[in-house]
Amino acid sequence: MRLADLAERIGADLEGDGDIEIDGVAPIDGAEPGMVTFLANAKYRPALATTRASAVIVDRDETVAGTAALRCTNPYQAFVAALYEFDRRPRPAAGIHRTAVIDASADIGEGAYVGACAVIGAGVRIGRDARIYPNVTIYDGVVIGDRFTAHAGAVVREEVRLGDDVVLQPGAVVGADGFGFVPVGGGDPLPIPQIGSARLDDKVEIGANSTVDRAAVGETVVGSGAKLNNLVMVAHDCQVGEGSLLAAQTGIAGSTRLGKRVMTGGQVGIQGHIELGDDSSVAAGSGVVASVREGDTVAGYPAVGIGAWRRNMVLVRRLPELLRRLRKLERRVLEGPSAGRRDD
Amino acid sequence: MRLADLAERIGADLEGDGDIEIDGVAPIDGAEPGMVTFLANAKYRPALATTRASAVIVDRDETVAGTAALRCTNPYQAFVAALYEFDRRPRPAAGIHRTAVIDASADIGEGAYVGACAVIGAGVRIGRDARIYPNVTIYDGVVIGDRFTAHAGAVVREEVRLGDDVVLQPGAVVGADGFGFVPVGGGDPLPIPQIGSARLDDKVEIGANSTVDRAAVGETVVGSGAKLNNLVMVAHDCQVGEGSLLAAQTGIAGSTRLGKRVMTGGQVGIQGHIELGDDSSVAAGSGVVASVREGDTVAGYPAVGIGAWRRNMVLVRRLPELLRRLRKLERRVLEGPSAGRRDD
Amino acid sequence: MRLADLAERIGADLEGDGDIEIDGVAPIDGAEPGMVTFLANAKYRPALATTRASAVIVDRDETVAGTAALRCTNPYQAFVAALYEFDRRPRPAAGIHRTAVIDASADIGEGAYVGACAVIGAGVRIGRDARIYPNVTIYDGVVIGDRFTAHAGAVVREEVRLGDDVVLQPGAVVGADGFGFVPVGGGDPLPIPQIGSARLDDKVEIGANSTVDRAAVGETVVGSGAKLNNLVMVAHDCQVGEGSLLAAQTGIAGSTRLGKRVMTGGQVGIQGHIELGDDSSVAAGSGVVASVREGDTVAGYPAVGIGAWRRNMVLVRRLPELLRRLRKLERRVLEGPSAGRRDD
Repeated sequence: MRLADLAERIGADLEGDGDIEIDGVAPIDGAEPGMVTFLANAKYRPALATTRASAVIVDRDETVAGTAALRCTNPYQAFVAALYEFDRRPRPAAGIHRTAVIDASADIGEGAYVGACAVIGAGVRIGRDARIYPNVTIYDGVVIGDRFTAHAGAVVREEVRLGDDVVLQPGAVVGADGFGFVPVGGGDPLPIPQIGSARLDDKVEIGANSTVDRAAVGETVVGSGAKLNNLVMVAHDCQVGEGSLLAAQTGIAGSTRLGKRVMTGGQVGIQGHIELGDDSSVAAGSGVVASVREGDTVAGYPAVGIGAWRRNMVLVRRLPELLRRLRKLERRVLEGPSAGRRDD
Repeated sequence: MRLADLAERIGADLEGDGDIEIDGVAPIDGAEPGMVTFLANAKYRPALATTRASAVIVDRDETVAGTAALRCTNPYQAFVAALYEFDRRPRPAAGIHRTAVIDASADIGEGAYVGACAVIGAGVRIGRDARIYPNVTIYDGVVIGDRFTAHAGAVVREEVRLGDDVVLQPGAVVGADGFGFVPVGGGDPLPIPQIGSARLDDKVEIGANSTVDRAAVGETVVGSGAKLNNLVMVAHDCQVGEGSLLAAQTGIAGSTRLGKRVMTGGQVGIQGHIELGDDSSVAAGSGVVASVREGDTVAGYPAVGIGAWRRNMVLVRRLPELLRRLRKLERRVLEGPSAGRRDD
Repeated sequence: MRLADLAERIGADLEGDGDIEIDGVAPIDGAEPGMVTFLANAKYRPALATTRASAVIVDRDETVAGTAALRCTNPYQAFVAALYEFDRRPRPAAGIHRTAVIDASADIGEGAYVGACAVIGAGVRIGRDARIYPNVTIYDGVVIGDRFTAHAGAVVREEVRLGDDVVLQPGAVVGADGFGFVPVGGGDPLPIPQIGSARLDDKVEIGANSTVDRAAVGETVVGSGAKLNNLVMVAHDCQVGEGSLLAAQTGIAGSTRLGKRVMTGGQVGIQGHIELGDDSSVAAGSGVVASVREGDTVAGYPAVGIGAWRRNMVLVRRLPELLRRLRKLERRVLEGPSAGRRDD
């Protein structure tokens, strides 16, 4: 693609030779001639002088020498737009593979790709332009919107409902039985039938090998636009609010409700039966054991406000010093002034 | 189902109109007319006045107005019994799908359902009434009891043995090679062949995308009635005692032994080569690095008795206060009484 | 196998009857007559007197009575060699199952086993002696070296490159889309196309249900000989150096670089955009939020040098004592000597 064309497509102002042929995108320190890169983080500014890229996406004030510049107000967003232009990964053409197994009562919209050995159960309804990769399993009674993407090995259990533009990465599981057992005196715990279901609203993405369990009763819900990274666990009867972003290996215990746009770092654990308000955040590795108010950021285990947590962590590291100071005082006070002088 | 019939089936005493038609079960704040709900937790008592349910399962002393009541001594257990009555999720009928691939030497008992593209290896023996969903893989030489349920994508590796009533949620993996490598001076670590196996006893349930590795030698064992939630890792050569309940994302390193009825909260990590006694518990998010005695509850990282852990956590939060008090003393003692008065 | 032959094969000196027939290997407390065991850890020395094994692999100075001995300088390594001799797990013979789905444009080397319902996409190139178990999915454009092993349910996404001797345990996912979304004012986060890829070098092993994401741009790389245990997450654009060993449930956020021979304990979390030097280690359960120097061992959350962490943990447990000492001082200093004497 000509650089001038790229500039136009991503809404940037061109500075330099518009006839340069661009054939790829790369980070600033890995770019080759013929590629476009970007600078959005001051940390990488020194690399601007040495990058081999043919063009760089920068903001309006950046000083650029020796390479063409594409100027715009949000270089990172423009770079993402460029990534869309250069996304040439192979995509399967529409068509149902001869080895796919689709129940006669299933209803699949126009334009679908259904890969080899994908299995679609009775009464399933899927909208248009689905892409269902090999070895995916959709159980009976599932209802799915348009432009559904399910990567290989993903599983959607019975009667789950998915909105439009839902993406399941490989191995994602939606609607497995929640973990519910009633202790029965003396004997094995009795399983609680998980007769509820699970629902993912529009534009939800579930990461590789993540699991969203069905509800015991009612519905586990992941709201519109929420994104879950890999190996995330959302337990039965949870609600994850729209636009929430859950980083990898986050786990949410049963019946907890996350508001809108909640963000969790990696490996966050959240206790059952609590609420996290809209726009709240949890730092990576934290364990949340009590409800969090709207807009708050918490950290630590058990999680507290991130400011308090930081202060406490600093003090934990200062404990050896605190102990020394305490000992010194003790010598002065309990053993008398002469003792105190020993290490002054 | 008539309310009177439901009362009889779940062993409750009816108070109200036994002819009401009940067609579902729901939590107290989500129930609709025609549904039955329950009250087992005092926290939800206010909802009793406003629930739209047609009937509510309560204990013998609860005051109920405006809705029929089903009275019993354990409302939660009776509610679970009601869930069984209303479990109408679609279940596949017995039968072997034409695309299932079953080795000629495999022996599968009566009443089995084997879904599309499920693959069952040589010499496999499975008892009666199995339900094996699509895209499940059972390797060669596996032996399985009666009423086995394997959801889509589950994998059972070679020569693993499963008891009766075992349930594998989607993507569960039993018998993968344990993580064992011998450091070899200078070169790549040498893999230790994992020639042992894994065994799940009767009524074991393994959650979605959980993994129970095979032993290097001998057998990894999950005892009768133990339940593992999603994304749990049980490493090679571990023993998990009967009736244990392991919450999601728990990880147990190699050769560790859990006694009977051990309970772990979510995201618990347990070091290798230690023992957790019968009826011991580990709080969510804890990291256990030493053996735990029978009946003890531990918490924190590294885990200690939960009482000590709570006291320590309270004190960590009081560190800023402790520091202030220490400073005040220092001023008094080291700088003299006049200094101390400055902030009194 | 005759004991004398086993001795020769594992390079040990025989002491005892070389004609004993050995038919298995077992740990010292579980061995039966006819089996060989080993002693490498002094903790198990008492079991040497009571083991039922017919022979025991020991070092050159160990006192052995009542059983044959195989003497060598490294008993553990010799035991591993014996495991190789007795690895009799069933392995599938070469051959392409009739239900495997291999695109006409794929090129698979000699000696391959491809199991039932395995799916191999367009343009895939695989070296010789591959073992691809049932229900594996290899997307279009993947390039793989010799002696590839992919267990059931493993998924390799489009254009990923794998070296020689790569092993994927069941359910492992390589090349899923990285977790990248640009916040867009007011609307749903915009997905960043993950147009990069992922590469696993020679002898890499990926554990069951682990995930290695593809890069946004460029390549996520796991270096030669690195081994990842189960449920590990390596995010987009990470580099894991050669010979690294990542224990189960470790998670590494985007763009982080691990040097050579880095070791992580279980459930370690590592922040994005940092570096861990060659030969560095992270204790189980730790959360790393800053770069780690070559050879360092860190622990805790946030992780610090393991020595400092241990000292701090000891002091946290002593906080109740510190508080008592502080109170005593306060009484002496602030309330006067008479108050202080009350609890002396």
